[in-house]
Amino acid sequence: MGDPAGIGPEILGKTLDEIGDITELYVVVVGDFSLMERYYSGGGKLPLLLHDPGKDICFQENRINFIDPGPGINDVKSGLTRRDSTLKALRSLDMAIDIIKKLPREISKALVTAPVSKQNIANISKGFVGHTEYLQNAFSSKHVTMALVGKSFTAIPVTRHIPVRDIPGKLTRELIIDTLKDVYGNMDILSAKSDPVVCVCSLNPHCGEGGAIGDEEIRVIAPAVESMKAIFKNLTGPVSPDVAFYKAMRNEYDIILGMYHDQCLAPFKMVDFESGVNTTLGLGFVRTSPDHGTAYDIVGKNLANPESMIQAVRLAVKSLMKNTAGKTE
Amino acid sequence: MGDPAGIGPEILGKTLDEIGDITELYVVVVGDFSLMERYYSGGGKLPLLLHDPGKDICFQENRINFIDPGPGINDVKSGLTRRDSTLKALRSLDMAIDIIKKLPREISKALVTAPVSKQNIANISKGFVGHTEYLQNAFSSKHVTMALVGKSFTAIPVTRHIPVRDIPGKLTRELIIDTLKDVYGNMDILSAKSDPVVCVCSLNPHCGEGGAIGDEEIRVIAPAVESMKAIFKNLTGPVSPDVAFYKAMRNEYDIILGMYHDQCLAPFKMVDFESGVNTTLGLGFVRTSPDHGTAYDIVGKNLANPESMIQAVRLAVKSLMKNTAGKTE
Repeated sequence: MGDPAGIGPEILGKTLDEIGDITELYVVVVGDFSLMERYYSGGGKLPLLLHDPGKDICFQENRINFIDPGPGINDVKSGLTRRDSTLKALRSLDMAIDIIKKLPREISKALVTAPVSKQNIANISKGFVGHTEYLQNAFSSKHVTMALVGKSFTAIPVTRHIPVRDIPGKLTRELIIDTLKDVYGNMDILSAKSDPVVCVCSLNPHCGEGGAIGDEEIRVIAPAVESMKAIFKNLTGPVSPDVAFYKAMRNEYDIILGMYHDQCLAPFKMVDFESGVNTTLGLGFVRTSPDHGTAYDIVGKNLANPESMIQAVRLAVKSLMKNTAGKTE
Repeated sequence: MGDPAGIGPEILGKTLDEIGDITELYVVVVGDFSLMERYYSGGGKLPLLLHDPGKDICFQENRINFIDPGPGINDVKSGLTRRDSTLKALRSLDMAIDIIKKLPREISKALVTAPVSKQNIANISKGFVGHTEYLQNAFSSKHVTMALVGKSFTAIPVTRHIPVRDIPGKLTRELIIDTLKDVYGNMDILSAKSDPVVCVCSLNPHCGEGGAIGDEEIRVIAPAVESMKAIFKNLTGPVSPDVAFYKAMRNEYDIILGMYHDQCLAPFKMVDFESGVNTTLGLGFVRTSPDHGTAYDIVGKNLANPESMIQAVRLAVKSLMKNTAGKTE
């Protein structure tokens, strides 16, 4: 449910209303139950079933299995950001992580997270920079990939929340190759096309102009791309980002690897702000999230657009179907 | 005319056909005359008048005053890139610069350049990185600003053709302030709105998150923006680029200052590739250019879209009208 003082409860309620029947899957929601009851009206389709987090939990099909890690947030006001709500957001996330860890290895899992305030969580949990890194740590993953899946294209930053001055130092062949491996293993999640074209961006302007404007293209990016061409059918790069995103908008490229956060995020949010899905790969399961924040300013006004959350849930479900399909074969 | 072996002659011919009558202005074109005759059909409106570059030139109104610096390029083939055509592109540019320099100071001037191959020119004129820097040097300008004027918004990179690793070192308060001064002096060229909103981007992801992800926002960008708020009515920043360009697309921001080349170019070309105009400010006159290259692959096929060139000429004419209006007051 994310931060109960944000729009998480509202977009979650609207999403469950919209999605309706979910069969052959166990649906588990962790968050504040009173807020869920306020925002979810579709009880007729999938009724809520509140579990006691203190006891052994037996999830049921055709129900929204609900777990409230407590304490109750009964007095959340519009736009309110407080220590209590932040604490509950973090407790909910930790409980979701705990549930996933306890599930048997052979069960396919997916996690959908709702918006939290990174800054507020960092105040009570030092060093919190986002779900991606928090989950990487919780599941002891050596490498995770953040992918932004949109209607127009998918954008994947190879480096994430680091200063621009640190980018050249952090950018290695191994990092690009590890990211491309995560892409290769999740092509059906990252693109609706059966044969998507993957494009790797340059770091420097004009693709470095043969070394005249930086040498990372020659030293790092091109060798990484070349070494992965053996397994990728449609892989190209390095391509200057002012060409890459132009072509992505014209359906020539489907998945764009950017070398840093804003190389991906600025073009992506420009065209897919409403419906983009933030996805984490490399955890052992797929995690998705709407690509927007807590929007404290519109809480309680019935103004929150659930589109990104709906797409996040659909993508998570798709990842489970893929896993199941894989097993049946 | 730019590179005679590129699409310059074709888009120039189409543009002059489209624009038709230009009154109260002297039109001067420098390039290859035989190619001009091939691509320009609108002689009835503004007839061509070929001058001898060796003699004193007396420009005439209601004519396209044409100067061919020679030698003639009669055998340009489709898609051909050669030393001869590159040399002629450079000679044409040098002659245009020479003409502007010789004109009396009190005459309002504007320069429109057509595409050249930077790489080909660099082969015969070492260190050539683009028109912007070449003109800055030719006119001994201390500071020039490159602005990309599009239909959706205008994007202005504070640093240009440098490696990413050099950006933090080159980014100073003075550079941002000098750029903002160029913006302030050319607001009517940069935006069609009477009261445009100017937004300055952050360098680092999430606007540096209060210093957690880089300190350039605190040390450099915010102080520069604050110091310019006294003269700017609508100036905001630093704003994270993934918010800035999203808002620019929704008409909340009109002019975006980016801290580096691709921060501006990737979002800009994504939406304004066909009609964007590359503009140089700070030369003492406005220089405009279509925002695309020589497109050698489509030369001679009548496929070149003149839209960006038409907009470039219109913007140059607008800058002259502004100067004239200023003088009449």
